[in-house]
Amino acid sequence: MNEKSFIIRGNICYSEAREQLSVTDRGYLVCCKGISRGVYPVIPDEYRDLPVKDYGDRLVIPGMTDLHVHAPQYPFRGLGMDLELLDWLNTHTFPEESRYAELEYAEKAYQIFVDDLKKSASTRAVIFATIHIPATEFLMKQLDAAGLKTYVGKVNMDQNCTDTLREKDAEASLDRTAAWLRETAEKYPNTRPILTPRFAPTCSGPLLEGLGKLQKKYGLPVQSHLSENLSEIAWVQELFPWSSCYGNVYEHYGLFGKEAKTVMAHCVHSSDREVELMKRNGVYVAHCPQSNINLSSGIAPIRRYLEEGIPTGLGTDMAGGANMSMFRCMADAIGVSKLYWRLADQSRKPLTMEEAFFLATKGGGSFFGKTGSFEEGYEVDALVLDDSGIRTAKELNTKERLERYIYLAEEGGQIVGKYVAGKELLLS
Amino acid sequence: MNEKSFIIRGNICYSEAREQLSVTDRGYLVCCKGISRGVYPVIPDEYRDLPVKDYGDRLVIPGMTDLHVHAPQYPFRGLGMDLELLDWLNTHTFPEESRYAELEYAEKAYQIFVDDLKKSASTRAVIFATIHIPATEFLMKQLDAAGLKTYVGKVNMDQNCTDTLREKDAEASLDRTAAWLRETAEKYPNTRPILTPRFAPTCSGPLLEGLGKLQKKYGLPVQSHLSENLSEIAWVQELFPWSSCYGNVYEHYGLFGKEAKTVMAHCVHSSDREVELMKRNGVYVAHCPQSNINLSSGIAPIRRYLEEGIPTGLGTDMAGGANMSMFRCMADAIGVSKLYWRLADQSRKPLTMEEAFFLATKGGGSFFGKTGSFEEGYEVDALVLDDSGIRTAKELNTKERLERYIYLAEEGGQIVGKYVAGKELLLS
Repeated sequence: MNEKSFIIRGNICYSEAREQLSVTDRGYLVCCKGISRGVYPVIPDEYRDLPVKDYGDRLVIPGMTDLHVHAPQYPFRGLGMDLELLDWLNTHTFPEESRYAELEYAEKAYQIFVDDLKKSASTRAVIFATIHIPATEFLMKQLDAAGLKTYVGKVNMDQNCTDTLREKDAEASLDRTAAWLRETAEKYPNTRPILTPRFAPTCSGPLLEGLGKLQKKYGLPVQSHLSENLSEIAWVQELFPWSSCYGNVYEHYGLFGKEAKTVMAHCVHSSDREVELMKRNGVYVAHCPQSNINLSSGIAPIRRYLEEGIPTGLGTDMAGGANMSMFRCMADAIGVSKLYWRLADQSRKPLTMEEAFFLATKGGGSFFGKTGSFEEGYEVDALVLDDSGIRTAKELNTKERLERYIYLAEEGGQIVGKYVAGKELLLS
Repeated sequence: MNEKSFIIRGNICYSEAREQLSVTDRGYLVCCKGISRGVYPVIPDEYRDLPVKDYGDRLVIPGMTDLHVHAPQYPFRGLGMDLELLDWLNTHTFPEESRYAELEYAEKAYQIFVDDLKKSASTRAVIFATIHIPATEFLMKQLDAAGLKTYVGKVNMDQNCTDTLREKDAEASLDRTAAWLRETAEKYPNTRPILTPRFAPTCSGPLLEGLGKLQKKYGLPVQSHLSENLSEIAWVQELFPWSSCYGNVYEHYGLFGKEAKTVMAHCVHSSDREVELMKRNGVYVAHCPQSNINLSSGIAPIRRYLEEGIPTGLGTDMAGGANMSMFRCMADAIGVSKLYWRLADQSRKPLTMEEAFFLATKGGGSFFGKTGSFEEGYEVDALVLDDSGIRTAKELNTKERLERYIYLAEEGGQIVGKYVAGKELLLS
């Protein structure tokens, strides 16, 4: 039984709502069997017998959800950043992903990814693998053993890609996916499968149709890409001339929200019609600011999505994004929202620090249910942060220390404790 | 005698020209009394008796020049990132800088700044202090002792700022500056003074006129800010209604290039006339991409400046920028240039990795003379980089390792050796 009951003491910060940050200095987070019973300035009588893990002056915040990341692209993160999406896929991504046909390479690469993710700020992640089943199952097993909560997708692709990554046809792709689902649907306590059509251009109509049926049969969540790049959007319109927008392609096949819990990465250039569809169907946006910079895609109008009430979180999108750190991802989200305001639309005010923190924790976390906050009833994913290496002559309050950590996590910050659903991970 | 002669062995990368990166695997960088005698695949006979420092498979690159940074703002980096320039100055910056009237605080704060800068990728920096002379001299002394090569400016301000930072009047400001120059002009081997009118709005005409005379008298270089923010530019036009552009204000008083070697931070919104003036006078641009994001200033058209032949380097602009790392600064420069291309002007193609590397090394380094490269005759500023902590399953060549280091320096990279003008600094 790994979900013991205990209390975490520290300077506790978490989001209650998008612009509402709760801060309790030297507070007590009560965790009973993995679930928060609230944060208190003094221990309530009913919990006074629970053991206290006292982290002194350190910061305690919710674990973060990386809502979009490609595990097989981890080996080339930070490389080949001079191309736009479609050329980048053909030049760098597809050749690398083809290597995962070889299990030995996949094991070596995925082990590094899982080790690094375990030490990162992410407690949860929604992950693309490749089309390869043995490699994908190895990844799922390793993630499960690491104690991280994840969705992992075996990718579907049956057209418009290099031979080495193309499944024979729709039927073959569906059969392979069904076999993978039978094997993994119930296998891992921490790792669950997610349907993963790579993106509309690499999936034929029959494949998407079959995936829609699989979705219904297994009640699976869905992840894919949407309106990342202008050439990509034009291509989708060519391939699916009947569609009213890119998102309509997925919707047509039952892969765009409603009963199918769905997350779409990017949504940089979504049309009004598409935004309306996302809103109506409750489709999640995985905002990947650094990837959208690196691949010259543009800046997603996140303020608009928040105002429309579209569920939104943050993704690193490695290797479109180079960095694994969700702190960096928050800082990037704030940064691009300022440039969007300056260069694109001054009616969309920039994201605040509180909002970025919300997106990285409670916003994206909600894809997993009640996670990403310390409010009562939430699963306790927690990070303990040591910011003593980010030196300053100035006295700072807890909120300032959190803000600074977002910008400077990689210049002296250290994650010294990590809990997932109430279970402490060993980081070293 | 600290400038010994020796050879550094490693995987050596340096810029020859803006788009030309020289890579020599397991090469030999010959350093004679602080000056490069070139990089060779095998040791030339004439140098065969020199001692070799063999860094094995590590990367060896030139040290970097931070062309614009505010030392007194270091304590609040990463904080208060929700305001534009003028409000940010009044709310966060001026109150913090006022504290440097108290030497005890200044010593505590500057010691941290200098310690961290010493361990950073920067071997050279062009630095703003405050108006306070004892604090500024302490900073200069510490930087000198650290072995870094720097220009440091006591700031001039006699109007339009909080009382606690305003020098009494132009005459007082000039007298104090002259006294500071007499004290420090020849005092430190590594730290030199630079004239530093904060920016046009906080300097009266008589002050700028007097600074122009001091420039001529001492032959000093000059640093200031230029066309960072739209409200700032409008304000300068109000304050100096006779000026043809913001830069013309400095030019009018002899503080804008020509014989006065000058670096201007930002140049985000420079008019055609201003760009022409910068070009004609050889004014350096210190491009500070992260600061321009954080303060919602916009994106400087660096491609244009490069095409016009305007000398350009990179600056962290802490605390407008949060990060001290010049690797991060390079990645940010590439990133914003992509967004500029996408959102502002598709005739300005994004910066390449080679160009960003040039800007951070040879481009900005040229403000100090022949530094920032390993070509023969250049002072040997060098960094030895250990990238083994940035794990990957992929085999990478040296150039790929360098590209990746730029993006991932803070996620596993480590500077394990640092040389300034041929002298090795002790980093731990």
